[in-house]
Amino acid sequence: MDKNQKHKLFLRKVISLAVRKVRLNNNGPFAAVIVKNGKIISYGYNRVTKKNDPTLHAEIDAIRKASLKLKTFDLTGCVIYSSCQPCPMCFSAVYWANIKKIYYAVTKETVSKYGFRDLKIYNELKTGRFTVKMEQIDTDNAVDPFKIWNKKKDKIKY
Amino acid sequence: MDKNQKHKLFLRKVISLAVRKVRLNNNGPFAAVIVKNGKIISYGYNRVTKKNDPTLHAEIDAIRKASLKLKTFDLTGCVIYSSCQPCPMCFSAVYWANIKKIYYAVTKETVSKYGFRDLKIYNELKTGRFTVKMEQIDTDNAVDPFKIWNKKKDKIKY
Repeated sequence: MDKNQKHKLFLRKVISLAVRKVRLNNNGPFAAVIVKNGKIISYGYNRVTKKNDPTLHAEIDAIRKASLKLKTFDLTGCVIYSSCQPCPMCFSAVYWANIKKIYYAVTKETVSKYGFRDLKIYNELKTGRFTVKMEQIDTDNAVDPFKIWNKKKDKIKY
Repeated sequence: MDKNQKHKLFLRKVISLAVRKVRLNNNGPFAAVIVKNGKIISYGYNRVTKKNDPTLHAEIDAIRKASLKLKTFDLTGCVIYSSCQPCPMCFSAVYWANIKKIYYAVTKETVSKYGFRDLKIYNELKTGRFTVKMEQIDTDNAVDPFKIWNKKKDKIKY
């Protein structure tokens, strides 16, 4: 048996979901699924233009739904399958969610050929040559929120 | 007058919001505000642990609210002020939202001293040495969603 058979089953599901969704309304051509112990926890799909939410990528959608369902922000033990390589926003969301493994079908290079900017954002984060300019401004009491957080006895680290 | 006076005003607002929120419940010590033509469009703050949503960082929250309010996924012309340097998830969300300028108070290096992993994620994206493993699996029909999207006459690019 193809050792990737199991992964291909989940990837076929997300590709098929992406196909169904992109045909409807203004969904983007992306879908994802989160799996724990072989069971599907949540599906996600891209609704950036449909919902007017630039953060509503498939992986973000799937992570939010899985966290809601499992009642935790910590998705340790889950894996994510995505119809394409996650953009840096989604890669970082996966990181914050403590998901350690991403399986994907289409590369960011292919996605870029269809006009999406995933590869550009990866390149900016790699080279540090940002088109979105970040400027640090010295401001009084800027560290106060962290000092207060640090002293909280009931703080929940993540 | 200090040329950064205007920026400091907005940054003081977000620092003050972060202080108020981190004292309450399980909010994280982060806040942000989105401004267009000098007017505040939306505030955001971190509720990862409170809402069980690993994606609910201050900037993501502010972007979602601004998009909802302005009824567009395209926040061109807006700027974002954040109490700390956005993590790569939030930087990329800002990028996708077409916001071109980020002003922040506390650096990612300082945030890291309080146990947050922002700097680690930046370093992984810079070096390409990922602890979250990404694996590409060849899957039949993987490009279909993009081919369908490409042919749609009513597609909305972003």
